[in-house]
Amino acid sequence: MSKRNLETCFSPALFEAGAHRDSIVVIIDILRASSAICTAFANGAASIIPVAEVSLAMDYKSRGYLVAAERDGFVLDFADFGNSPFNFTKEKVEGKTIVYSTTNGTGIINLTLSSYMTVIGSFLNIGAITRWLIKQDRDILLLCAGWKNRFNIEDTVCSGAISEILMNSNNFTTICDSTFAAIDLWSLACHDLSGYIEKAAQRTRLRDKNLDDCIKFCLTPDFTDKIPIMKNGVLVDNIQ
Amino acid sequence: MSKRNLETCFSPALFEAGAHRDSIVVIIDILRASSAICTAFANGAASIIPVAEVSLAMDYKSRGYLVAAERDGFVLDFADFGNSPFNFTKEKVEGKTIVYSTTNGTGIINLTLSSYMTVIGSFLNIGAITRWLIKQDRDILLLCAGWKNRFNIEDTVCSGAISEILMNSNNFTTICDSTFAAIDLWSLACHDLSGYIEKAAQRTRLRDKNLDDCIKFCLTPDFTDKIPIMKNGVLVDNIQ
Repeated sequence: MSKRNLETCFSPALFEAGAHRDSIVVIIDILRASSAICTAFANGAASIIPVAEVSLAMDYKSRGYLVAAERDGFVLDFADFGNSPFNFTKEKVEGKTIVYSTTNGTGIINLTLSSYMTVIGSFLNIGAITRWLIKQDRDILLLCAGWKNRFNIEDTVCSGAISEILMNSNNFTTICDSTFAAIDLWSLACHDLSGYIEKAAQRTRLRDKNLDDCIKFCLTPDFTDKIPIMKNGVLVDNIQ
Repeated sequence: MSKRNLETCFSPALFEAGAHRDSIVVIIDILRASSAICTAFANGAASIIPVAEVSLAMDYKSRGYLVAAERDGFVLDFADFGNSPFNFTKEKVEGKTIVYSTTNGTGIINLTLSSYMTVIGSFLNIGAITRWLIKQDRDILLLCAGWKNRFNIEDTVCSGAISEILMNSNNFTTICDSTFAAIDLWSLACHDLSGYIEKAAQRTRLRDKNLDDCIKFCLTPDFTDKIPIMKNGVLVDNIQ
């Protein structure tokens, strides 16, 4: 295989769909959607249906689906539970299909459907997803979910960690300034990731809402080998 | 004065005009528009009319104006000269009004006209502009021009250098992840700025076109005390 191109995009508002039709897009939204999705599959979820609109999630609920839905960190009142990875326990999700709607992450998944493939990345599956990406003969775009289209630190350092592994494999090349910057920020963050993330705005948002109990978990590398992948509008475990 | 808010925006595509109506916006496009504009005023230019469209620049030319215009680094054939700061010599610009149109920078100036004020920042005027910003009782947005809406390294590290000075003055507060990231990237770049900029895509673009002779100059701090400011659609020297 010749060297493949690696790029990084810091916000869905900067995503150029036309430029990535042949690429694998890795969606990174570590606080908390992409971490929650990885956890759900680690605990045996059969599939996850990402939906952007609250009304659609509500419709699925009325048809008997298990629904995880939040906006700005708060569980929507009709939903079974919200966006914390700790909600996606084995007892709740094993063998189940979950409908999932969050502030940032799930809308972005649907934004990337014109790409060759969409997968979900986080620290929780960083080893598995990088080993898998290295084996594919495809260009890669790391797409940070950010916060309401803004750049965020936590997704950027996770993309930097993934980029560092991919570049060190010698299978990739890049001329993307975002990728270089993310790797450099990861080099500053990696020695004390929790400490570095302290300055992230989302860290403060979650703390202010008493929703920060899962942050340490979301920063844990290699909790699972699962690689959530979009197939026909539904996230499934890539190993299946 | 109470502490004022400092924010950074990495791309014009992420600029939220409504959020900055009361702010001073600092436009940063160091390779090469904002450096060229600072140089023009240092060399005595009377004013600069930024225009986004080539057709408008051409129209001004037919009316006898001095026109600097480039796209993707190349001088447009009807223009008097292009985008290198070295073009804006005292002999050419002293006392003159210059019509100026570039790939990224000049369109962005017009994008920010709904803000309280738009000024031009670069390493060339970093001392003057930060001293001036500290004295104003206004929130500040540092707007990086990027490259065709993409994040770029050189404008980001310049915004980080400006942010570091502003934050160290104790007159500002921020919860902006972009500002924190820019300051951190500046902390990596500051010891060898030319070396750090080597990896920037724009560095490669300019070298490939033999247009990189001005880069060292564009990274020079405090070449001038001029602060170009937009007044009634025209850039003038703020000291006037």
